[in-house]
Amino acid sequence: MEKLQCKGFKAAGISCGIKKNNLKDLGLIVSEICSNAAAVFTKNKAVAAPVTVSRENIISKKCSALIVNSGNANCATGKQGIENSRLIVKETAKSLGIDFSHVQVSSTGVIGQNLPVEKIISNIENLKSNLKEDFTDFTDAIMTTDKFKKNIVLKEVIEGKEITLLAIAKGAGMIRPDMATMLCYVMTDAEIDENAIKNFLIKAVNKSFNKITVDGDTSTNDTALLMANGLSGVKIDSHEKAFAFQNLLDNALIFLAREIVRDGEGTTKVVRINAVNAKSDEDAFKVVNAVAHSNLFKTALFGQDPNWGRIIAAAGRSGAEIDPYETDIYFEDVCMMEKGFGLGHINEDKASAIMKRDSFEITIDLNLGTSSDYIITSDLSYEYIKINADYRS
Amino acid sequence: MEKLQCKGFKAAGISCGIKKNNLKDLGLIVSEICSNAAAVFTKNKAVAAPVTVSRENIISKKCSALIVNSGNANCATGKQGIENSRLIVKETAKSLGIDFSHVQVSSTGVIGQNLPVEKIISNIENLKSNLKEDFTDFTDAIMTTDKFKKNIVLKEVIEGKEITLLAIAKGAGMIRPDMATMLCYVMTDAEIDENAIKNFLIKAVNKSFNKITVDGDTSTNDTALLMANGLSGVKIDSHEKAFAFQNLLDNALIFLAREIVRDGEGTTKVVRINAVNAKSDEDAFKVVNAVAHSNLFKTALFGQDPNWGRIIAAAGRSGAEIDPYETDIYFEDVCMMEKGFGLGHINEDKASAIMKRDSFEITIDLNLGTSSDYIITSDLSYEYIKINADYRS
Repeated sequence: MEKLQCKGFKAAGISCGIKKNNLKDLGLIVSEICSNAAAVFTKNKAVAAPVTVSRENIISKKCSALIVNSGNANCATGKQGIENSRLIVKETAKSLGIDFSHVQVSSTGVIGQNLPVEKIISNIENLKSNLKEDFTDFTDAIMTTDKFKKNIVLKEVIEGKEITLLAIAKGAGMIRPDMATMLCYVMTDAEIDENAIKNFLIKAVNKSFNKITVDGDTSTNDTALLMANGLSGVKIDSHEKAFAFQNLLDNALIFLAREIVRDGEGTTKVVRINAVNAKSDEDAFKVVNAVAHSNLFKTALFGQDPNWGRIIAAAGRSGAEIDPYETDIYFEDVCMMEKGFGLGHINEDKASAIMKRDSFEITIDLNLGTSSDYIITSDLSYEYIKINADYRS
Repeated sequence: MEKLQCKGFKAAGISCGIKKNNLKDLGLIVSEICSNAAAVFTKNKAVAAPVTVSRENIISKKCSALIVNSGNANCATGKQGIENSRLIVKETAKSLGIDFSHVQVSSTGVIGQNLPVEKIISNIENLKSNLKEDFTDFTDAIMTTDKFKKNIVLKEVIEGKEITLLAIAKGAGMIRPDMATMLCYVMTDAEIDENAIKNFLIKAVNKSFNKITVDGDTSTNDTALLMANGLSGVKIDSHEKAFAFQNLLDNALIFLAREIVRDGEGTTKVVRINAVNAKSDEDAFKVVNAVAHSNLFKTALFGQDPNWGRIIAAAGRSGAEIDPYETDIYFEDVCMMEKGFGLGHINEDKASAIMKRDSFEITIDLNLGTSSDYIITSDLSYEYIKINADYRS
């Protein structure tokens, strides 16, 4: 197991009293030198205050510190919420002697309750004195209902020198506006030009966090941040090195995205839905999107019922160009429906066996073109209802 | 209670052995004289065979008979499925001495199993001999997992003469591809021009069945059929009479649509979601559609948790133009969020009391324009999972 660290980055995680029972709820990441940085945020228009502030600051393309609290999302908190996030950034910058625009801020937790900002402000010095190379305390401090930690350290030798990439995520649900949020922080000691860094992040996010769903809701607080401090001495300045770095980043984020689905609310299955031979990329997306979000399909996954009728019905209403009399459906390599016609009980029995696994693939072959897409989804279980119906009580 | 009948129409419902335990599973409606007729069908591209055949036949704008089976949807049954539906129409037309194109055919039940067409064909004479003015047997024959019957008889006096409208629906879930289907048959003794009848039906469907959702899936078999035989002697030939008839039809279909949500899979609440003061009609629709289908919101309804954070989060991701700092959210007349800011526990307590009711309204005031829209939805409960995870086992 690699150590949870990356050259030139330190982190802390402490309790400041937002969560009950002295659970860690305040985290800080500090970059020894000012990192080139990029971030992508939720597309939800009801954005939380810290996202608004971080979005303004990342225009600088620099980040020296990230401060995050869990237990309160600082969302739907009006103008006061924004002032609170700005105050946290201001006090963090002052304490660390860095520029206001080089601080990123996140919050995750309950929506619609005022952030107890004083608890955070009064603990910044405490946080600072807890900074260490190991990120374990930090990973504790960002968890909400996560059942397990999600982090990965990858190393790659480029031109004889090793670079390290440390990625940490939280989230159990593509979103839960209440426990709001998928957060992901990536630190690397590779050197990446400030004008190139965002493109690496966007490409990796499109292959990872944008390919998963638990409940189809998107958070008010979702954030992915990438910081590169260059301390490895490896500069990503050629096509080959860019390819290698992109691959490293993709692998880290795809791993974390899958971990988030596996930790999804009530998840018992992690299932990849493929659409192949669609007429267009948009059609392929529409099909996997409709199937991956169909409650009828997701309950059948939970019931381990190879109910392919629900798959063709969801594909049919997806808005994509489909001809049911040309469409085939596979559970792994077992064909369930061929040219719109069910293949009967022998194949259904084989599919039932496949569905007992924790993870498998379903493929919808539209036989109309050459485009394909996929989404990784989960099942819909009693536990999901229990978690979400009873959450605030 | 009005009698379940309408002048000039007869119906039958019998068991032909598709369902287990000799439950009624085959129904027939016959119009004494050939009715002007219109129908609207599912927009799902994976349409069931009977929809394909009925869609061809309704081009005639006439209907003398409707034959329907429950227990098997005749969907995803390939070319054979279409041949089977055509055979049923052909034999029904022959037996009744009417035109092939004047017969409508429906199926509802499990997807992907061959229709045992012989059981239907061999029972057409039996059906015919069971025809009566009362539609009770027929309503039994079209039910699948419906927990109660859904029908209504409305009468209206127009220019001194009474017209009757009899409407019968089945469905428990806007759709369930498996138990596929919302079916609705409307009979009236008003006289309606064959070129006007479809417009009445479309308008009423847009106000009723297109305003409800249980699980967001749309069926492969959905059908609404309107037949007008003119036997009341009342011709709908003026603006005033058209208005009166439209009103009658709207009321019948709105009632049945609400009944379908109330009978929805696992439903414990029937909730109307309003979006008001949106910038455009499309924005208003996007907001109510996103909220009405959000699993997080629907589980909160089940938990009777006034979790308005999930409402603003769903509205925010809906794609509509919204400004959270201008948006208000109401549970009935209790304001929960004003200009993006939660109003606290006193109002939440009032909303909790409202949520104990079987039925209530939630309003999202976007304060950006003058457009509005609504959808009637249900909650997402353990029972929904139970019904759908275990359905075929």
